[in-house]
Amino acid sequence: MALIVQKFGGTSVGNPDKIKQVARRVLKKKNEGHQMVVVLSAMSGETNRLTDFAMQMQDIPDQREMDVLLSSGEQVTVSLFAMAVKAFGDDCISFLGDQVKINTDSSHTKARIENIDTERITTELNNGKVVVVAGFQGVTQDGDITTLGRGGSDTTAVALAAALQADACEIFTDVEGVYTTDPNICAKAIKIDRISYDEMLELASLGAKVLDIRSVTFAKQYNVPIHVRSTFTETEGTWVVAEDKAMEGRIVSGVTYNKNEARITVSGVPDQPGIAAKIFTPISDADIIVDMIIQNQDTGNGLTDMTFTVVRSDYQRTLQLLQEIVEKIGAKGGVHGSDAITKISIVGVGMRNHSGIASTMFRVLSNEGINISMISTSEIKVSCVIEEKYTELAVRALHDAFELDKENLPEEENIL
Amino acid sequence: MALIVQKFGGTSVGNPDKIKQVARRVLKKKNEGHQMVVVLSAMSGETNRLTDFAMQMQDIPDQREMDVLLSSGEQVTVSLFAMAVKAFGDDCISFLGDQVKINTDSSHTKARIENIDTERITTELNNGKVVVVAGFQGVTQDGDITTLGRGGSDTTAVALAAALQADACEIFTDVEGVYTTDPNICAKAIKIDRISYDEMLELASLGAKVLDIRSVTFAKQYNVPIHVRSTFTETEGTWVVAEDKAMEGRIVSGVTYNKNEARITVSGVPDQPGIAAKIFTPISDADIIVDMIIQNQDTGNGLTDMTFTVVRSDYQRTLQLLQEIVEKIGAKGGVHGSDAITKISIVGVGMRNHSGIASTMFRVLSNEGINISMISTSEIKVSCVIEEKYTELAVRALHDAFELDKENLPEEENIL
Repeated sequence: MALIVQKFGGTSVGNPDKIKQVARRVLKKKNEGHQMVVVLSAMSGETNRLTDFAMQMQDIPDQREMDVLLSSGEQVTVSLFAMAVKAFGDDCISFLGDQVKINTDSSHTKARIENIDTERITTELNNGKVVVVAGFQGVTQDGDITTLGRGGSDTTAVALAAALQADACEIFTDVEGVYTTDPNICAKAIKIDRISYDEMLELASLGAKVLDIRSVTFAKQYNVPIHVRSTFTETEGTWVVAEDKAMEGRIVSGVTYNKNEARITVSGVPDQPGIAAKIFTPISDADIIVDMIIQNQDTGNGLTDMTFTVVRSDYQRTLQLLQEIVEKIGAKGGVHGSDAITKISIVGVGMRNHSGIASTMFRVLSNEGINISMISTSEIKVSCVIEEKYTELAVRALHDAFELDKENLPEEENIL
Repeated sequence: MALIVQKFGGTSVGNPDKIKQVARRVLKKKNEGHQMVVVLSAMSGETNRLTDFAMQMQDIPDQREMDVLLSSGEQVTVSLFAMAVKAFGDDCISFLGDQVKINTDSSHTKARIENIDTERITTELNNGKVVVVAGFQGVTQDGDITTLGRGGSDTTAVALAAALQADACEIFTDVEGVYTTDPNICAKAIKIDRISYDEMLELASLGAKVLDIRSVTFAKQYNVPIHVRSTFTETEGTWVVAEDKAMEGRIVSGVTYNKNEARITVSGVPDQPGIAAKIFTPISDADIIVDMIIQNQDTGNGLTDMTFTVVRSDYQRTLQLLQEIVEKIGAKGGVHGSDAITKISIVGVGMRNHSGIASTMFRVLSNEGINISMISTSEIKVSCVIEEKYTELAVRALHDAFELDKENLPEEENIL
């Protein structure tokens, strides 16, 4: 008997019929002899409906009240789900974030889980019930409702799995798992059977949308195996698990890209101590998040260039902000940039033990006539900024070069 | 400075614009220098929408889960209301039943309030905030959500007013107050300025729908003045308060009727000890509620008649049930009845000190050619069962005979 946490998103519970289908699927697993904890999101569309109401009340809705409002969505799905299970002749009990309790800090709309009191869940599981928990929500020490932000139900599921020492956490979604790259632009993309937490973290932070990054962090911290799979098929998906020897044999696990950034260069900056702070402090004060930063070597004239990326929607605002700064610091080359860029990345734990991966990437891009304007590396990834129009070409070329359509791990015995 | 609890029902908060209007109205009162606690129902239509979902899941929805489901409705209105108040530049905080806490027993879908922990409300009122509380809902000792049943938000408001020792509890509704009778069938009906708790209890239990009976019981118990008034006008409504001398001067306060009952007679019943129990125990076991019961005097042949009323929707079921019983007890006259009856009642605390009120009622009905089939009296009311088709005629005749269009109390100074 295993203890399994299953999470279903908004499209999986979008109407009463779909909720029944989910209940059937959960009971099928339970009837194989497992204890089942289910985490649900709000019905798809419900969060938009409620947010629309809120926007009619207040230009910037109060965050505490926004959490009270939005958390009603999961309240509806978990109670309906419990009824469905009971209608099928089994037993089930629903819990909200403040009943479980999922204790969080008090950062409304983006709270962090601090700990979970699992006593009531364990009791009800031992009573033979399916336990369904409202995703996305928690409670502060003062009893105020919080929500965990975008993708929060994934985090609820993994945190519950960790707290309950579950055997696995299955995240049901509308794709079949994690792919070697976006199948929409590369027909050769294949589903990855097993991937390490660190690779998944890099992929998630570099643009892959299949899992919320905080949930992967949690899973890594507590060593919870995540199974990302499709709501609509019975096919095995992707297991996100601790790194093992087999994974190191695979040099590159995936190619990912992010079109949501813009590149800005400040040219002819006097190469003096403190100059970076003078540029980036006002940007940070304006709540603009900077991703990559590259400072070129002073080429002898006492001047240097500073290039960095920001979220694309902040591009114009950042350019305006820099006009003043450029004058103040005497940057003779002025400010220029582009919002038609893509950050393309290769990720793989095998890179640690293989040299020449980065240079292979540069050569592949160069062979296709693609110019690289920025480079950033970590132990298990290489990212390059290129012109946006080359995105698809670059993805396909890299996928081919690293033979991702062939690379996959030997089948291991699955946990479930 | 007074502490005022204001309750607004579903039609008053039916959409974002209406919620803003309510917020404006509450703030107007606050700006007169009062502390404001607001109790809201779910948006009109929301309870039906959610109930419809539930019926799609389970034939008879689980009651605990039904409470989780339905309580989400007020969660939406209170958070939106708090945003509206903030948008108008004032401050507000929302509380759900389990945050206040409104502690109830564990009778899901019809829970009773046991006590209320007002500490957080008082703190926030002293911080100058409007406090908005979700009506209709509470929490058990185990932390399970409960709901209070139909009209539950009225009860929440009065119970909060009692616990906070509020100066008044204003119940906003779609009528202007409590009327001497139903204005839809008697054009001469007038709004009652002040009425006693006992009269209101009788009116509510005899058919008047303006206030939930439990809320009046609470108000009487804790001496909370209730002000029933219209959401849509500024007109003073009806004050429901402790009885005073002036009220005794008014013999009849109101005429009310109830078309929701049916009359059943078991004839030729052997007049033996224990015979009533033999008839009514199986009825009670079938969860059928009996209202009036009349047993005729044995007229000398050792037989008697037993006549009683049940809720009209239980009429056929009760007749069927009685077929067996009648044989068992040897009731020779069999069972007969009618579901085309009305219980018409006059209510007034002045009856205590005036004789001849009942006989006046009988004479008025007789003068109109209306036959009375059952009579029931209490200290402050007389009820008669008549044929349904005479309802309007009887109401108008009694309203005229007791001059209810003229009777009203001398204006007293209002509390607010």
